[in-house]
Amino acid sequence: MINVGIIGAAGYTGQTLLSILLSHKHVNVAAITSATFEGQSLSNVFPVFAGTKKPLVFEKPDYDSIVKRCDTFFLCLPHRESMEAAAKLLDAGKVVFDLSADFRLKDHAVYEKWYGVTHTKKDLLASAVYGLPELHGDKIKNASLVAVPGCYPTSAILGLAPVLGESFIDKSSIVINSVSGVSGAGKKAMGDFMLAELEGNFYAYGAPSHRHTPEIEQEFSALTGEKTMVTFIPHLLPTTRGIYTTITAKLTEDKTSGEILNLYKSFYSGSRFVSVHDTFPRMKWAIGSNRLYVSAMADERTSTLIVTSTIDNLVKGASGQAVQCFNIRYGFDEKVGLGYE
Amino acid sequence: MINVGIIGAAGYTGQTLLSILLSHKHVNVAAITSATFEGQSLSNVFPVFAGTKKPLVFEKPDYDSIVKRCDTFFLCLPHRESMEAAAKLLDAGKVVFDLSADFRLKDHAVYEKWYGVTHTKKDLLASAVYGLPELHGDKIKNASLVAVPGCYPTSAILGLAPVLGESFIDKSSIVINSVSGVSGAGKKAMGDFMLAELEGNFYAYGAPSHRHTPEIEQEFSALTGEKTMVTFIPHLLPTTRGIYTTITAKLTEDKTSGEILNLYKSFYSGSRFVSVHDTFPRMKWAIGSNRLYVSAMADERTSTLIVTSTIDNLVKGASGQAVQCFNIRYGFDEKVGLGYE
Amino acid sequence: MINVGIIGAAGYTGQTLLSILLSHKHVNVAAITSATFEGQSLSNVFPVFAGTKKPLVFEKPDYDSIVKRCDTFFLCLPHRESMEAAAKLLDAGKVVFDLSADFRLKDHAVYEKWYGVTHTKKDLLASAVYGLPELHGDKIKNASLVAVPGCYPTSAILGLAPVLGESFIDKSSIVINSVSGVSGAGKKAMGDFMLAELEGNFYAYGAPSHRHTPEIEQEFSALTGEKTMVTFIPHLLPTTRGIYTTITAKLTEDKTSGEILNLYKSFYSGSRFVSVHDTFPRMKWAIGSNRLYVSAMADERTSTLIVTSTIDNLVKGASGQAVQCFNIRYGFDEKVGLGYE
Amino acid sequence: MINVGIIGAAGYTGQTLLSILLSHKHVNVAAITSATFEGQSLSNVFPVFAGTKKPLVFEKPDYDSIVKRCDTFFLCLPHRESMEAAAKLLDAGKVVFDLSADFRLKDHAVYEKWYGVTHTKKDLLASAVYGLPELHGDKIKNASLVAVPGCYPTSAILGLAPVLGESFIDKSSIVINSVSGVSGAGKKAMGDFMLAELEGNFYAYGAPSHRHTPEIEQEFSALTGEKTMVTFIPHLLPTTRGIYTTITAKLTEDKTSGEILNLYKSFYSGSRFVSVHDTFPRMKWAIGSNRLYVSAMADERTSTLIVTSTIDNLVKGASGQAVQCFNIRYGFDEKVGLGYE
Repeated sequence: MINVGIIGAAGYTGQTLLSILLSHKHVNVAAITSATFEGQSLSNVFPVFAGTKKPLVFEKPDYDSIVKRCDTFFLCLPHRESMEAAAKLLDAGKVVFDLSADFRLKDHAVYEKWYGVTHTKKDLLASAVYGLPELHGDKIKNASLVAVPGCYPTSAILGLAPVLGESFIDKSSIVINSVSGVSGAGKKAMGDFMLAELEGNFYAYGAPSHRHTPEIEQEFSALTGEKTMVTFIPHLLPTTRGIYTTITAKLTEDKTSGEILNLYKSFYSGSRFVSVHDTFPRMKWAIGSNRLYVSAMADERTSTLIVTSTIDNLVKGASGQAVQCFNIRYGFDEKVGLGYE
Repeated sequence: MINVGIIGAAGYTGQTLLSILLSHKHVNVAAITSATFEGQSLSNVFPVFAGTKKPLVFEKPDYDSIVKRCDTFFLCLPHRESMEAAAKLLDAGKVVFDLSADFRLKDHAVYEKWYGVTHTKKDLLASAVYGLPELHGDKIKNASLVAVPGCYPTSAILGLAPVLGESFIDKSSIVINSVSGVSGAGKKAMGDFMLAELEGNFYAYGAPSHRHTPEIEQEFSALTGEKTMVTFIPHLLPTTRGIYTTITAKLTEDKTSGEILNLYKSFYSGSRFVSVHDTFPRMKWAIGSNRLYVSAMADERTSTLIVTSTIDNLVKGASGQAVQCFNIRYGFDEKVGLGYE
Repeated sequence: MINVGIIGAAGYTGQTLLSILLSHKHVNVAAITSATFEGQSLSNVFPVFAGTKKPLVFEKPDYDSIVKRCDTFFLCLPHRESMEAAAKLLDAGKVVFDLSADFRLKDHAVYEKWYGVTHTKKDLLASAVYGLPELHGDKIKNASLVAVPGCYPTSAILGLAPVLGESFIDKSSIVINSVSGVSGAGKKAMGDFMLAELEGNFYAYGAPSHRHTPEIEQEFSALTGEKTMVTFIPHLLPTTRGIYTTITAKLTEDKTSGEILNLYKSFYSGSRFVSVHDTFPRMKWAIGSNRLYVSAMADERTSTLIVTSTIDNLVKGASGQAVQCFNIRYGFDEKVGLGYE
Repeated sequence: MINVGIIGAAGYTGQTLLSILLSHKHVNVAAITSATFEGQSLSNVFPVFAGTKKPLVFEKPDYDSIVKRCDTFFLCLPHRESMEAAAKLLDAGKVVFDLSADFRLKDHAVYEKWYGVTHTKKDLLASAVYGLPELHGDKIKNASLVAVPGCYPTSAILGLAPVLGESFIDKSSIVINSVSGVSGAGKKAMGDFMLAELEGNFYAYGAPSHRHTPEIEQEFSALTGEKTMVTFIPHLLPTTRGIYTTITAKLTEDKTSGEILNLYKSFYSGSRFVSVHDTFPRMKWAIGSNRLYVSAMADERTSTLIVTSTIDNLVKGASGQAVQCFNIRYGFDEKVGLGYE
């Protein structure tokens, strides 16, 4: 059994982690922290956890007191808070899965530009592994610090990865339209996210300077072998969970949908959490699972590649992916705790 | 043209009033106030009003500056703020339609008990008219101060009014289960009303001490001629607008659904905003309109009266009813501005 | 491993059973049937099951061909179809968990009156066990035929069971208001259940002759020791899953909320799937789990008991409860496959 | 008063037309037809119309019997049914506003290719006017047959019209991602559109061969002066009403957001139903109104134009636009019946 601590366990990603890890056969949840709920029992704060055998109590996020009890930590903290916490835990010899943005961007200058804050732990960036198992599984095996990807980037990067190395894609023409359920914005009460404002609503936001853009471009560039920029337009969907991403790019050679699809099937033949489809997937398929569903087709009339991909933003887009990384890191079957085994 | 001021025009009832009054052929909206949006134009703050001919700007709620421009005022203020504002405007000779709870309860002691605050304008209570036109139309004609009823009470009182004077109803057995869309809770950002918390959710709240209870009991008692108490259980519905109320009471004599229904049809034969049905109405029928839909039937097997009624909480449950009162007060056709004429 | 067959596996209860049983450590799903999807693979029809290790294919519901492969069967069939299927499977020595209404009512005349069809397997009614583990756990241990309760009855019966034997409840005054998500109506396309009709809608239906009424009265009468009738009013909630039930009854003696609550806590002290609360539970707590959340309080002002209870209609109200019965019948821990163990 | 007939008045566009025309001061609704509801009163079938003064009864769609009573007709019929009906009514000298696709495409071969049916009234195509008032107002004034645009095309065409004649847009790079509420799919019961399937769902469909594509391309080509093709990807939004369209195109010259925005403001300076914004509009602004909200900006980093536009699919995307055309055709103020005047 691995003793696990969850820092910031009362937010949406924290709760999702708990729902996975409390049933994980190789995990003992040894500490959960929350500044807001310190001293209260998990099942009182979140009655959905009423059935848990072990009585858990939220502690204040004090690393000294919990570091001994845990082998590994999942950090569900706001960006910039995470970098300090991770450094302390790494110093103590712990393995860290960070769900914030703090260690995702290799170039600290890019981080500082898009997030508008100074990176105080630049020295850790080199050893941090971008926790996208379908691309970086080998590195995750030996990582001490895993930067779990953002929700939008997971859907976008895995959506286009199979063809980014191909010459028939015009890399300057990539457009990514994504929609996300509102849990991606977190639990803090904000007027815009009230049901009375959102029901029946829909809108674009954040473009063209949404913070997930450089994360997508970093991984895209690694796959294309050249600096690749994208137009990324996120939209708010009036529902709680889920991300749906529609990607287009111009084709510079004639390609059929069948040829494209074969590339996708081949690329993901060994992936246990990706399903490739020849028709558009539906977001609801992904809700509650760690699976990414992706379709790819050629619009031969306009020489355009059309890709759609969908995930649960809180699972494959955050907590499930973190556990997938954890499983790989600790040598467990990748699927333990993540659905039908 | 009547010059109208709307105090607190940026909340949900204020916006709904605007959507009605801006198309009302006898009304000139002469002033709108909002502490939050002072100095900003209506169409900038609420782009839904982009099509209005007249450019309106939110003013700060300063009565001295606006009292001359307006003949009548609609107060969309929190309880306790309303009583002071109303007093000032009445002193200046204006007609006041108050959408708060401050003047609904005739007995200031009842108000103070259920609302937990002192009533500073008790002297106005005697002349205030409870603005339920189907019951108090004659008094509204001559009122200077109209206390527009709460949303739940409108559905409950009109739901049972036709039989409350009948001896075959056991008045000690009345149970009122209501559900309400979340706009009833106002615009203030609160965690419980975020879409991510409410989607797919439903729950009772406030019972048995919800503040609308004494308002229902006051009107019920007037209709029965005896002190009548009710069990009132409100529930939160994961949608924006609408109230649906299900009322049960024991029958002390054998009555058929047909007999009950005839009482309802007779009672509401002259009402232009009430539709009586022999089957359960649907909440969506009422959304956007000033109409109350009501059904009544006898469950002969258990000797129980079952009544359901439904309204739009922001229209017949607040702003529409206020305009209906306004129309009556000023001698206009009751339906002006309130739908198909 | 118990070899399990699911008859009618493509409906909502069938899918929910699959989602539970495919992860159940003592179960091998040996056969799934569907007339509509015969010959198609499970993961093609329902991509949510893409991750299952074992490739399952829908078969036509032909008992001869599947009876040998399975030890036990879950029947997710329309009422009247179930009685014939159950009889065949019982003849073949199988254990049957029937999710239809066919064996819930002990008196075939009551069944025939409320369902309007002839009961062709009356002889099986005596041995059928009503599958509510919190009340009939001992009988379930030895049953060959378990009639899994309806969704509304589960919430109503467990909601009032702790006090139905008490003399301070006026048994003639019980009123049950329930709301249900639309999955309770099944998957068949019907105009009333289209999103465009239901979004923002809410309404009562079926009362006072909804078919779940006699099921509630049968169990209530067993608990009170006298013929007990109820006014049961179901409502349609514009969401997919969940039931919320609000029960009122007159108190014939003075009781405090604390006294009532103690009765509930005592009654459910040994129940692993019931949580007792002193405030109103929220429906979302129950979604996805096999847990019932219940609150009870006295409205001393009107001498009324107010109880609310909530479940997931597809889990504790159907498939989860069926698996709970299965676990009890086969001597497994009651919670296997049903959440945090 | 113009006497108006609505053919197919029981569908969503028919109901929306009724809600507008019953309050239109220059209109007398003289006939409404529905094969399904023949002989039933409007307020019985749709209780939302309970308040209408005039008792309307659905008739069967028999042109001989109603042609004398009406001056003009709105056709809310499936494609191919409309062409025959329009021909008959034009022969009888009536003015026809057709809400189907039958007369939108100037080239019958394009119609026949994308719709898969023969056009039997090709001779009418030349005189039919595409009913987009912001582009073709002058022609609408004198039209006998107005082909009211589709919902997606309205948002896409008006979204890009201000810059389609500009040389700095790469016309081969236009990508249109749209989302639509489900009312666009009509009232017919279909499994995919049940609330239990759609709640929390989202997906692309129809691309790259959705039937609204050639309609967009026809109008785009007219504006660019060259054959212009687009990649059009519609998505289903889990709500009832509204369309939101996000358009991207590569910029071939450096342009600032300010320059782009000025082109939009200038283009729509005389339009009474278009609001131009410098930030992303929200779909809910448009719901219930005949207004289109549009934003335009340059992503200078990637040299990409980003445009978003939003409408109510049933109003500006169908019935409201039809009434706007009607107002223009009959010389009324364009806004009569369509909101704050």
